[in-house]
Amino acid sequence: MTVWLNGRLLPAEEARIDPADRGFTLGDGLFETIRVTGGRARHLDRHLARLQASAAVLELPVPYPDDTLAGAVTALIAARDVAEGVARLTLTRGTGARGVLPPADPHPTVLITLAPPGPPAGPVEAVIAQATRRNEHSPLSRLKTLNYLDAILARREAARRGAGEALLLNTAGRLAEASIATLFIVRDGRLLTPPVSEGALPGIRRALILERHRAEERPITPDDLWAAKEAFLSNSLGLRPLLAVDGRPIGSGLPGPVTLALMNDPAGA
Amino acid sequence: MTVWLNGRLLPAEEARIDPADRGFTLGDGLFETIRVTGGRARHLDRHLARLQASAAVLELPVPYPDDTLAGAVTALIAARDVAEGVARLTLTRGTGARGVLPPADPHPTVLITLAPPGPPAGPVEAVIAQATRRNEHSPLSRLKTLNYLDAILARREAARRGAGEALLLNTAGRLAEASIATLFIVRDGRLLTPPVSEGALPGIRRALILERHRAEERPITPDDLWAAKEAFLSNSLGLRPLLAVDGRPIGSGLPGPVTLALMNDPAGA
Repeated sequence: MTVWLNGRLLPAEEARIDPADRGFTLGDGLFETIRVTGGRARHLDRHLARLQASAAVLELPVPYPDDTLAGAVTALIAARDVAEGVARLTLTRGTGARGVLPPADPHPTVLITLAPPGPPAGPVEAVIAQATRRNEHSPLSRLKTLNYLDAILARREAARRGAGEALLLNTAGRLAEASIATLFIVRDGRLLTPPVSEGALPGIRRALILERHRAEERPITPDDLWAAKEAFLSNSLGLRPLLAVDGRPIGSGLPGPVTLALMNDPAGA
Repeated sequence: MTVWLNGRLLPAEEARIDPADRGFTLGDGLFETIRVTGGRARHLDRHLARLQASAAVLELPVPYPDDTLAGAVTALIAARDVAEGVARLTLTRGTGARGVLPPADPHPTVLITLAPPGPPAGPVEAVIAQATRRNEHSPLSRLKTLNYLDAILARREAARRGAGEALLLNTAGRLAEASIATLFIVRDGRLLTPPVSEGALPGIRRALILERHRAEERPITPDDLWAAKEAFLSNSLGLRPLLAVDGRPIGSGLPGPVTLALMNDPAGA
């Protein structure tokens, strides 16, 4: 299995992350999850733009221009001869001495990997996580960082409670997002999703739906969810009807018409 | 430079973290920072007990018994022939396939490294971080996890504003702790520190001071800090007088008598 690490393609077993890499020691980094279909990385320009913007927030220099990174993703897909899959681009601040303060002259790490597409996600039931909450007071809630433990805790709780996903509340008790996806609900004929200020990650798929399908950003309470006609979860890998939460059906408890229309949209929002 | 990785001592340049290690990809792990003085790791039993308790919260199996880990730290100190330094024990969930849900049968990674002690920390001026807040609603605020980006953001802000440390507010606007240390203040003749429920990490040094010096856990507001007679920061590496915050002196603006007495305590709290 080939990966791309810091400028070159090499077998995964030869790829070495330094034990002093701040991605490993402190979670000091970012990543992008990119769908590959028909042998091409989808919305790669948007993913790279988000990576650049997020890296600027962390003052983390991106060591390659976008065209080099795009070329690297393309080269990896070609080397692996993959048509369908999931690419992941990880950017860390690289190695550093002990301590949280970043080195003055960092040498960031860039790793690109490619995974099989996994089974179709399909409709899902979720729980509202009780174990933890998403911190909308931190700018990290708006970045796809390597700090994923809250999502891991929520997702484990879901599994323990017999559900396939977890919705996270923000610290104000409103819905922020799912552990790895954006939440959309249909209520009073409007397609709604929590604003980024509520702790929602500005997902690529989320942005496409907002642009193309007249969705609106609105704070969403659990009561709004219970009153919704339908709901779905989206991320770069696809759209999943959300059929029930905490054992209570959303709307009819079946995939709704807005969800189905979006899933079948040939524009592939 | 020798490190200890998954059961053996080896040169750091031969130590390889797998690019699929969840510590690297998701920050799925914990660490302990342990002071080494006189060639011995201090309070190692407490550090290992905290590691075990924290790993239980994450349902992360610790792959070695405490005596093996203690022996590994001792062996590393001996191999490096170090009298003074800082040991770090990192535990991650090991490699995993794509996705946040942990593998059913994890093979955790344990890495132990040893760094030089660094210059004496000394008195410090701090800022109250505006960039981010600590999430007391997450159990992660009570664990020393690899998710350190909020602390990094706060510490960078401090550097930008000309200070050596950052205090973090919790989401309720009260003081939780510093980026890498516990906050203590002296007010009305009492030694106070924020409760763990306020978002304070249950530090080893913090526990020793609570046990031995009649300190009390109390919520602390910025106004409490401004009214304090003295303040200091503590972690496993030492105690630092906190002389000023946001440019305003705390008490006299000099190290206070309680702070000095604790710094000179031969029991070495």
